[in-house]
Amino acid sequence: NGNDDLQSVAESLLPAEHVEIATLLESLPVEERLSLWEALPDDRKIDVLVEMRSDPREVLISATEDDQWSKILTGIDAEDLLELMDSLPAKLMELAFQALDDQQQGYFRDATQFPDEQIGHWISHDVLAMPLNAKVRDGLRRIRRNVPQHCDTIFLINRSGQFSAAVKLTKVFGAPEHLPLVELTEEFIPVIKGSDDSTTASLQVQRSGFAALPVVDDTNKLLGRVDILSASELVNENYERQVMATAGMDEDEDLFAPVAKSARSRALWLGINLLTAFLASWFIGLFEATLQQVVALAVLMPVVASMGGIAGSQTLTLIVRGLALGQVTGANLKALMTKELKVGGVNGVIWALVIGIVAFFWFSDPLLGLVICLAIFMNILAAALAGVLLPVVLDKLKIDPALSGSVILTTVTDIVGFVAFLGLGSLFLL
Amino acid sequence: NGNDDLQSVAESLLPAEHVEIATLLESLPVEERLSLWEALPDDRKIDVLVEMRSDPREVLISATEDDQWSKILTGIDAEDLLELMDSLPAKLMELAFQALDDQQQGYFRDATQFPDEQIGHWISHDVLAMPLNAKVRDGLRRIRRNVPQHCDTIFLINRSGQFSAAVKLTKVFGAPEHLPLVELTEEFIPVIKGSDDSTTASLQVQRSGFAALPVVDDTNKLLGRVDILSASELVNENYERQVMATAGMDEDEDLFAPVAKSARSRALWLGINLLTAFLASWFIGLFEATLQQVVALAVLMPVVASMGGIAGSQTLTLIVRGLALGQVTGANLKALMTKELKVGGVNGVIWALVIGIVAFFWFSDPLLGLVICLAIFMNILAAALAGVLLPVVLDKLKIDPALSGSVILTTVTDIVGFVAFLGLGSLFLL
Repeated sequence: NGNDDLQSVAESLLPAEHVEIATLLESLPVEERLSLWEALPDDRKIDVLVEMRSDPREVLISATEDDQWSKILTGIDAEDLLELMDSLPAKLMELAFQALDDQQQGYFRDATQFPDEQIGHWISHDVLAMPLNAKVRDGLRRIRRNVPQHCDTIFLINRSGQFSAAVKLTKVFGAPEHLPLVELTEEFIPVIKGSDDSTTASLQVQRSGFAALPVVDDTNKLLGRVDILSASELVNENYERQVMATAGMDEDEDLFAPVAKSARSRALWLGINLLTAFLASWFIGLFEATLQQVVALAVLMPVVASMGGIAGSQTLTLIVRGLALGQVTGANLKALMTKELKVGGVNGVIWALVIGIVAFFWFSDPLLGLVICLAIFMNILAAALAGVLLPVVLDKLKIDPALSGSVILTTVTDIVGFVAFLGLGSLFLL
Repeated sequence: NGNDDLQSVAESLLPAEHVEIATLLESLPVEERLSLWEALPDDRKIDVLVEMRSDPREVLISATEDDQWSKILTGIDAEDLLELMDSLPAKLMELAFQALDDQQQGYFRDATQFPDEQIGHWISHDVLAMPLNAKVRDGLRRIRRNVPQHCDTIFLINRSGQFSAAVKLTKVFGAPEHLPLVELTEEFIPVIKGSDDSTTASLQVQRSGFAALPVVDDTNKLLGRVDILSASELVNENYERQVMATAGMDEDEDLFAPVAKSARSRALWLGINLLTAFLASWFIGLFEATLQQVVALAVLMPVVASMGGIAGSQTLTLIVRGLALGQVTGANLKALMTKELKVGGVNGVIWALVIGIVAFFWFSDPLLGLVICLAIFMNILAAALAGVLLPVVLDKLKIDPALSGSVILTTVTDIVGFVAFLGLGSLFLL
């Protein structure tokens, strides 16, 4: 019996991490996904939803009956709701907000004052914070009550709630009970602003050596903390976004999205690409008369376009990474450009000669060999130039170069390649 | 005076993290990079080198005089050397190994028994390990001596050195001194095998909720631990490898590599791509006679090829991510294929019609419209098929689909597109 099977699968999953269940749910076709979802105990559903990517998550949310939500939403906290808010319809959002207690509602409101690309949106309020005049004794009492996950320091705050220093828990334990905590503070701990970029701040947390860093507002008031687990999730999500962006998708794309939805989400990218392909075709069309007379040009066109595209995407990928790491700046842009043009020059000469010679023998036409040789060289140089400048300009315009860079670059190298090749062909071969 | 400036830059960097100095060094053109490197104090050089990517690191290593190394290598440990070993020439490797004490040499030998794609290569030996019969009192004494970074548990091991349980440090502190530590053990802590894949194991550490997880050998003997910082570095490196692989580069590529080196490292990818481009050209060449008579086919060729390439890369990217997450398996492959073919079918029909109509009006030729319409539809379907099957097959063959997937896929969609378009053109338009 299928239902019993499912029940036993669901039960066997109980000791598993929420992440593992979320991963499994994402990997199931919609029907099986919904059955497993229904078989999960209500009190685990929120934790599992939080770990899922938006698209597959929304499939589950929209399939859940209205009357089940009050049970599912029991025990939701502000952090869960922040993660889910973009996936919940307004009515459920209201219900979920009401399920938070006063304190959590406050946390939720505070967080939503920051957009989700700022770290303030993602902070945890589960902090060990104590007044500046607290003693080791007070610290120990506070610690014995409860230490949150990934928390290795007590934050000391002044009367206005401003962050002033951090004390490692391990130092508190060894110390005499009457010692003021301020005597044990760390010499240096990085402090994050709520308005800092969430990826940059998360990398800072990962590298800090601390399990979590304090987050403050513009007046240095302690807002909360970002621990290394949240930081790692944000960093991983950012990388995944980058990988998916190269194909014009976002990181929330569902392996088993409904066909209509999936087709729609990909159609835009295909449409943009179609426009650029037609643009390239239009340029080729300018040389119809030449193509009619020298059909070898039509045969070799893809070689010219693709060598430029590949050379350009190599430079582009390197520069996009450099921008993301903060390594490409106004200060080294000219040096970078020079180097990439030199690399392009070397590979341009080598491959132009190889391709020229092949074309010469293939079509027994030395002039055709010369034409493609020059076109390849020009296109690889243009690719290097565009590969450096394009992402820098896009970045300045606040457009993500990882998403739109490659489609624009390919348009440039296609057009330069076709015009150079067919133009030179018209000059030399007619 | 330039040298004084540099000295002051170097001094102003002293309080900075090693990672920040490493990032700065990577972003400098070679000459400036070498000057800053020389101005750095010798005792920080190893820590900075460890944080750098291999290619820029090797520029510094090969520029450093032989007689400086004994000073630089003072204080190197096994973990540093493991990170650097691929960058050091044999002579320096020997020197560095001799700079390790006996214990560190042992650690180094143990680690190199695992290849670097296994987590055993990357473990830390800085563990709090205690015998199973230890008491809270013993634990406290051990903790007061020294707690390593990102360490929140004591590992309990039996007489054969096998891992048996973990005790949270925070539990040890509150407990009565004579209590055996075994009474405080965590109900569940994931245990990693040294031979586990390093990315998979690192993700497990990130998600575990612990600051570090124990790593054991096949007989359950405790080898060491992987903390969440090392885990995050390994995960980030893996993502970066994936992003760079899409352009046929590796994550060690240097922003300011010497031109010859950089040109050489990119030439291979250009060469592979050239072979595939020539292959596509060869297929086009089969239809030379048709092209000569219907030059519009030559004009529209890039549209057919590029729509197939884009559609295919979307499916490919989704499946490659699914494989990496363990979400694409034999169990759901058929369902995935069905879904992707449906999505391809929908987008195929839509864009085939759009492009067919545009071509009809552009060239006032209804048959040409029909030909490109059919060719686009066939190519988008082929792209969906190849986008699912190709990465699965490559993965089975232990070839990284993130690296070679896109070049093979584009070859498939180019050839299918050209043959379908020019073949149908020969049938209908001659």
